[in-house]
Amino acid sequence: MTVTAPKGFRASGVAAGIKATAGALDVALVVNDGPDTTAAAVFTGNRIKAAPVLWSQQVLKAGIVRAVILNSGGANACTGPAGFQDTHATAEHTAAVLSGRASRFPVGAGDVAVCSTGLIGERLPMPKLLHGVDAAARGLSRDGGAEAAKAIMTTDTVPKTAVHSGQGFTVGGMAKGAGMLAPGLATMLVVLTTDAVADASILDAALREATAVTFDRIDSDGCMSTNDTVLLMASGASRIEPTPAELAEAVTAVCADLARQLIADAEGATKEIAIDVTGAASAADAVEVGRSIARNNLVKTAFFGNDPNWGRILAAIGTTAAAFEPDEVDVAINGVWICKGGAAGEDRSKVDLSARGVTVTVNLHAGEESATVWTNDLSMGYVHENSAYSS
Amino acid sequence: MTVTAPKGFRASGVAAGIKATAGALDVALVVNDGPDTTAAAVFTGNRIKAAPVLWSQQVLKAGIVRAVILNSGGANACTGPAGFQDTHATAEHTAAVLSGRASRFPVGAGDVAVCSTGLIGERLPMPKLLHGVDAAARGLSRDGGAEAAKAIMTTDTVPKTAVHSGQGFTVGGMAKGAGMLAPGLATMLVVLTTDAVADASILDAALREATAVTFDRIDSDGCMSTNDTVLLMASGASRIEPTPAELAEAVTAVCADLARQLIADAEGATKEIAIDVTGAASAADAVEVGRSIARNNLVKTAFFGNDPNWGRILAAIGTTAAAFEPDEVDVAINGVWICKGGAAGEDRSKVDLSARGVTVTVNLHAGEESATVWTNDLSMGYVHENSAYSS
Repeated sequence: MTVTAPKGFRASGVAAGIKATAGALDVALVVNDGPDTTAAAVFTGNRIKAAPVLWSQQVLKAGIVRAVILNSGGANACTGPAGFQDTHATAEHTAAVLSGRASRFPVGAGDVAVCSTGLIGERLPMPKLLHGVDAAARGLSRDGGAEAAKAIMTTDTVPKTAVHSGQGFTVGGMAKGAGMLAPGLATMLVVLTTDAVADASILDAALREATAVTFDRIDSDGCMSTNDTVLLMASGASRIEPTPAELAEAVTAVCADLARQLIADAEGATKEIAIDVTGAASAADAVEVGRSIARNNLVKTAFFGNDPNWGRILAAIGTTAAAFEPDEVDVAINGVWICKGGAAGEDRSKVDLSARGVTVTVNLHAGEESATVWTNDLSMGYVHENSAYSS
Repeated sequence: MTVTAPKGFRASGVAAGIKATAGALDVALVVNDGPDTTAAAVFTGNRIKAAPVLWSQQVLKAGIVRAVILNSGGANACTGPAGFQDTHATAEHTAAVLSGRASRFPVGAGDVAVCSTGLIGERLPMPKLLHGVDAAARGLSRDGGAEAAKAIMTTDTVPKTAVHSGQGFTVGGMAKGAGMLAPGLATMLVVLTTDAVADASILDAALREATAVTFDRIDSDGCMSTNDTVLLMASGASRIEPTPAELAEAVTAVCADLARQLIADAEGATKEIAIDVTGAASAADAVEVGRSIARNNLVKTAFFGNDPNWGRILAAIGTTAAAFEPDEVDVAINGVWICKGGAAGEDRSKVDLSARGVTVTVNLHAGEESATVWTNDLSMGYVHENSAYSS
């Protein structure tokens, strides 16, 4: 169900031959049949933005999205003006096909968001992609969410979908992403749908509130992508207009679910690590400390080796500008306080790191604020996957 | 010869049993016999500083260092007040031994710098260490530089030494460091000696000028240590007082030599990568761009896989605040301009990555400034070495 769980949406996923693997789904389409077509989105903070990001940023300025066309198998990033024309042509073609027969409204290219993911720097095979758009439009269905979620996968091993029900309305979502997961959004495409009634500014506020505490707090490998897009579309088909807080809560629930699925499927990972930073002077301090630990290759390799190396965690904390005194920091790994007051605490042999899930707890003793950042270990598998294949 | 190449210095390296491996050298001593005993140092930017760093910072305030005692096998970091007392006791013992028989001057503990390297968070075995100080004092020799360089090794596979001759004076140096190499000094201990005549302020200026363009521009794994120390001691034994510029040039030459040796010996590395950033609006912009590329795990794994993946380089550049336009950036790998104007240039198949040395050239087309940052690839060996052993 995923993005088609809320009323008013149809979706599809088809194989257009863009991916090298024969028969692999690589084009997805999600259409909002209304009655409303409000939308909001957040995009990568990377200054090198893929053509579809530059396009979709323009589309979103009006706060209206009728459909989003997505492809895997190529990022269409660093492709110059020709790459931007490819994105424009994709939106034009999608709009024309939908207006012709597959939509209840006439659709303009300016109402079609575009997302791409895959190798940076290569042009998309446009004839294949445009045929894929035709097939995706033909395949649109109220049950198409699952196929759409499969069609946006790259190195993902499983499709990622989530649904949350509010009071009389529903939020659904799908995501792709397994590497290049970093601050300011992971390498990921996320499409969220809701049948709630909400204008674009309410959607925008809900989406920013949700991403700030979910996607912006996962950091698999510190690498920020050129293509990240999180798009939220509202059909209003439930006729229910939740309060902004109710909507934000539901959107956050779906984003949190998808974010955890991204970390769970990160390339080569053998550990899913929650870093709970407490006792911080501010939430920003807590996030900075959590992210510094999450990005530290020596911490990450230690966890791959099941080594509760708290000294490396302290060294990572010491690189931040957060408020704390070095001789007051406590660190627990899976509940064992192996560092107390900046020095050795309980014996490291008490720490059991045999499970996939790991919790690192840091108490800065500098205030009352806290935040959790999620990350992975740095494994042989990560190096293998990212050295053996161009992506 | 190394640190004993300049006149006025004796050194030694002995096995004190601090390292687990029987017979491994682990205590080094370098003594300045004068006539001058001026000194300067730079220390880690990490806010979690090891006890020997906190101690040596105090010693250096007077601009006088008579001797430096170094140990491998334990960092004495995150060891609390007891660890600081251990460092103090080491300096006291070194001063007493040197005053008793091994020095031409009475030596106070406040004239003895201390450096430690190894696992964070564990106390040093003080009886062994103090016996090692005795042995090191007995072993002091004008030929002892090579043994001293061996005694500070941790995961280093080779000792690292360098010498540069100026007009009538000499600068010598030794370094250790193979991982945790990052901005604001690598995980490293460096002792530099010179027989030039120079007061502490001149030494300080020369050292800061040298480290800014050498050790501060190597970044093996983005991890900053708790123990980094670069110490420069001057004996004045040559009776030559170089100009500040002459001194800085000689110190920079030795630092550059040692910095390249650190990158060459980085843990698990199969590539030594020079990132030349040109056309920058400022040197700071050039360093920021170079460092962003150097720290990007996806770039580093691509080089491990001999993949000239310029898209990942662009994505890394895009995360910086440097002045540039995305559609004006050129990137060459080993001289092949595979990215022109932010899009594909020459064919990637032309890039030969079979050699250990790699040069990445970035032209931002935003100004006239440039900088080079050195780094390594991210290999299976790095993950293995840092997951299999606590360090």
